[in-house]
Amino acid sequence: MIWPSHGSNPQYLYEAMGLSLPKHYNDFSANINPLGPPPILKEKWMEFYQEIFVYPDPYAIQLKKRIENLEQVPVESILIGNGGAELITLVARMLAGKRVLLVQPTFSEYEKACQANKCEVLYHQLCEPHFELNLDELRAKLAHVDAMFLCNPNNPTGIQYPRSTILSIIEECKMHNCLVILDEAFFDFLIEYDSFIPYISKFSNLIIIRSLTKMFAIPGIRLGYLVAQPDTILMLSQLQSHWSINTIALRAGELCLENESFIKLTQEYINNERKRIFEFFKKNEFGVSSSNVNFYLLRDPFLNDQFKLFEFLLHKAIVPRHTFNFPGLEGRWLRFAIKGCEENNHLMEVLAEWRHHH
Amino acid sequence: MIWPSHGSNPQYLYEAMGLSLPKHYNDFSANINPLGPPPILKEKWMEFYQEIFVYPDPYAIQLKKRIENLEQVPVESILIGNGGAELITLVARMLAGKRVLLVQPTFSEYEKACQANKCEVLYHQLCEPHFELNLDELRAKLAHVDAMFLCNPNNPTGIQYPRSTILSIIEECKMHNCLVILDEAFFDFLIEYDSFIPYISKFSNLIIIRSLTKMFAIPGIRLGYLVAQPDTILMLSQLQSHWSINTIALRAGELCLENESFIKLTQEYINNERKRIFEFFKKNEFGVSSSNVNFYLLRDPFLNDQFKLFEFLLHKAIVPRHTFNFPGLEGRWLRFAIKGCEENNHLMEVLAEWRHHH
Repeated sequence: MIWPSHGSNPQYLYEAMGLSLPKHYNDFSANINPLGPPPILKEKWMEFYQEIFVYPDPYAIQLKKRIENLEQVPVESILIGNGGAELITLVARMLAGKRVLLVQPTFSEYEKACQANKCEVLYHQLCEPHFELNLDELRAKLAHVDAMFLCNPNNPTGIQYPRSTILSIIEECKMHNCLVILDEAFFDFLIEYDSFIPYISKFSNLIIIRSLTKMFAIPGIRLGYLVAQPDTILMLSQLQSHWSINTIALRAGELCLENESFIKLTQEYINNERKRIFEFFKKNEFGVSSSNVNFYLLRDPFLNDQFKLFEFLLHKAIVPRHTFNFPGLEGRWLRFAIKGCEENNHLMEVLAEWRHHH
Repeated sequence: MIWPSHGSNPQYLYEAMGLSLPKHYNDFSANINPLGPPPILKEKWMEFYQEIFVYPDPYAIQLKKRIENLEQVPVESILIGNGGAELITLVARMLAGKRVLLVQPTFSEYEKACQANKCEVLYHQLCEPHFELNLDELRAKLAHVDAMFLCNPNNPTGIQYPRSTILSIIEECKMHNCLVILDEAFFDFLIEYDSFIPYISKFSNLIIIRSLTKMFAIPGIRLGYLVAQPDTILMLSQLQSHWSINTIALRAGELCLENESFIKLTQEYINNERKRIFEFFKKNEFGVSSSNVNFYLLRDPFLNDQFKLFEFLLHKAIVPRHTFNFPGLEGRWLRFAIKGCEENNHLMEVLAEWRHHH
């Protein structure tokens, strides 16, 4: 079977399973804020129409200035991307032919982009069920690579690595002249998080990637940014295509980044929902990853392969994210986004039904 | 002086000139349909809002099927791009380190993308004032390159090359195993044009790039497509970042490509305006390139360097496209888009005033 490489677009998943797409379904396969975009975007939407006639500002100055203020990092250290995915592609392009370490399981685009650029890819495997990052094992590998990708909090587990571990990695890598690409696509779902951006000025080997599409529920319009020292930004921007970020994304990003209260509201909502559903999972003997964010891994410990549960859910019009293409998971878990209260209730009802029969 | 690399975003041009941007200005520097987008886009705009919450279909199947029907080319031969610029970047990435021929003056992104990918760039210079493509001179160079970019109708001249010349180039290149990248970004402004797409099945060395942002006046949302044999499409798509084309562009593209009457209307409008203003230019002794499309080169033959005229127009809040970064033009011409009747009248008034004093 050829599995879709990502969540969302469930038509491809149902097609792969030989099933027809239900008219109504509950898609838990995309890790998007269940509250939807900040309301200001809908209010301004008609104004955005005027923006389609003009070329985007290729330097995205307004948005960069907003980030400069917010993150206390100079404009010269910021690159705006057509989604986090474009930024990953640009970094992989810069690393063409080099040796790159991936910590698995993780977001599959790192590997895809590295392979497209003929990098030699090495792996460090996290172990079930805790998926902890063992620094000693990792350290031995860092001397032999040119770069490593680290996703924190990690996708698909939702687990946040200890700050001290990440700092040790960055320092260790600096000694070996090894680049660390820290993907913080989901950092803003964490209630407690000290940004690594202040370390950019000290560590020339640090690149931070952020996404605005998850927190602000705008995956359709694509927006992310990258922070690194100015030489790295210059190198990457020369590889980027002109006008890569559309005007709607630029305007939306400027408005979204003013919404601190929206972020707080989301964090609390997600946190409460996660507690609520994790209690249900515990009570009903489902295994989950100790996620700190808006998605988690789940398994029925009475099954080894979760295919039967997966199939059951799809028949019930609930769409989990399969994990067949996450090395180290190979279908032994399913990934779910934390959605709105009603949708999470529906998921729990259906899982209770499953448990009743299994 | 550091000149902006493209038209549009006139704030950068005024900044480079040390002038302040007028509150109201007439921007002739971007070659966009003066009629604006097809009205259906405004009608559907509120519906598009729903599209921002979901990831774009990474395979863009609906849009590809529309192009398949329209251009009679199989879906497997189509790649959708985040604007023509992304498609140029992807082709240059594929050509990394190879020898590439550019016909100058032409769209500057070819050279920029080739240089970013460490290609060796060779040039074939078109000569003023007719900018004709001399096949014999070109032929000698084709044996020594891996690829050539050809923009037809050419930007910035607006001149359409003879069909037979293009066919000879494609055939000649095939013999030398040389790729021809035919950029047809403005083909749909030509009243008479026989598509080269039927040649895709015969010529494995032919790549055609098209843009939807000029005819449909949607440069802000980025959309283009590329047609080539399936192996080439596969190679390029592996280099493309995931979800590169936003959902708004996909939906807009599907609607725009249904608008044949809109294209006809635009062609007639542009044609009439071009005749009208070219008569004025002739009568007032301005030189123009024999453009067939929605932009043209202009010069005052009583000046060599056009800087004084350029400055005069900027002071009058008329924004031409400078040609300092077009090798072979170096500021001896200015480029203008054909805009709406009123704006073209305004340009003629201001140029009449200039002629009165010079």
